[in-house]
Amino acid sequence: MSRFFVDPADYKPDFMVLTGENAVHAKVLRLKNGEEVTVCDGAGRECVCVVSDVSNDQISLVVKAQQAALSEASVKVSVYMAFSKGDKFEHVIQKATELGAYEIVAFPSGRCVSKPDEKSLKKKLDRWQKIAASAAEQSGRGIIPAVVVLNSYKEALQRAAQADLGILFYENEQATTLRMALDAAHFETISLLTGPEGGLESREVEQASLAGLRVCTLGKRILRCETAPLCALSAVMYHCGEF
Amino acid sequence: MSRFFVDPADYKPDFMVLTGENAVHAKVLRLKNGEEVTVCDGAGRECVCVVSDVSNDQISLVVKAQQAALSEASVKVSVYMAFSKGDKFEHVIQKATELGAYEIVAFPSGRCVSKPDEKSLKKKLDRWQKIAASAAEQSGRGIIPAVVVLNSYKEALQRAAQADLGILFYENEQATTLRMALDAAHFETISLLTGPEGGLESREVEQASLAGLRVCTLGKRILRCETAPLCALSAVMYHCGEF
Repeated sequence: MSRFFVDPADYKPDFMVLTGENAVHAKVLRLKNGEEVTVCDGAGRECVCVVSDVSNDQISLVVKAQQAALSEASVKVSVYMAFSKGDKFEHVIQKATELGAYEIVAFPSGRCVSKPDEKSLKKKLDRWQKIAASAAEQSGRGIIPAVVVLNSYKEALQRAAQADLGILFYENEQATTLRMALDAAHFETISLLTGPEGGLESREVEQASLAGLRVCTLGKRILRCETAPLCALSAVMYHCGEF
Repeated sequence: MSRFFVDPADYKPDFMVLTGENAVHAKVLRLKNGEEVTVCDGAGRECVCVVSDVSNDQISLVVKAQQAALSEASVKVSVYMAFSKGDKFEHVIQKATELGAYEIVAFPSGRCVSKPDEKSLKKKLDRWQKIAASAAEQSGRGIIPAVVVLNSYKEALQRAAQADLGILFYENEQATTLRMALDAAHFETISLLTGPEGGLESREVEQASLAGLRVCTLGKRILRCETAPLCALSAVMYHCGEF
């Protein structure tokens, strides 16, 4: 069943109208009167609707039944990824959304490619949020993960440390495994930080430790910067009983 | 340290010569006399060597010390993926190699795009094996995972069922989680099967069950066909104490 996200203010109990990009998407899907779709407000509410009218720029829906939004994980996982080259961050946004991330956060670090400038950043954020929205629709999420961009490494550490458990992955860490960190904590929110192509500097790892993050290994193999966050997210979801 | 895989027959105790693609790769890396590299035979042997001579088409190495190949997982995971569109299989070969897969197997299923014909398949297999080799070098693997192509779904089931534990993931399965299947088994070899873009047919899922595979869920969210195998592989590696 097709899935549409509407603004919480537009989420009504009996009757709803899809406009803008939702209407465009509905047209692409060639929805017809009588077909059923799912509508979510991205904040936990979800219902099944029947298409009652299709016009050029809007789709009218009659709400058939409210339903529990079942697809959200019990743990809120924030995926923090250092700025990287090419479309790697876009790849991670799409996959992390499928895998159930609560939010995806980009941050600068010493060996990063430079952060996009203010002007191109606004455009990119727009694009990134759309990738998250599209992946959320396709994977049946109850929310669209927020894509967040931070201005400094320090800000990333402070923000990540506010979760019940904050973990930074470092390829030179050998003693502490992810399992040790997860087993030792009770958490409803967790932050997972991974570095850029060139890795994190040892100074940055010390800063993370001082900020209250656990420094963990993801195993003996060297993972690419776009593989590490998805591997960690999959393992955390598994650990928390999601599958 | 750069990493080279040589044929077991070319792996010598005192002195080795890199030729062919290894020599090309060494040239790209601009290796110089006195630099150290790691050489593996892809079958568990590994040593540190010092470059002793660089010429146009070969690199001479003096073996400095044998070392244990530490990077291989204790469990051998075979990743079975149904033929899919575009470069998704290539993506999975690269990532599954980083994540420690023992082999990567492509197979046809009912809703698959058609399997490549004999002629293009030979060329593709060549390319796929090179992707695995390159990812194995970069991630520090002790072996290059084999890329295998099967001719029928039935063959895939029979081959996968020979592992200590064989699991097929199905989006309509709700009762059996991956954790239940892993907790219930002792295994040193495991097969993980995932379907194509359109999913597996219910008939095919029944056949898998009859062949002795466990049918499991990967959670409430719908994963893309290239995300599911990597999510499952990450979780199995985590379960087996790799990180």
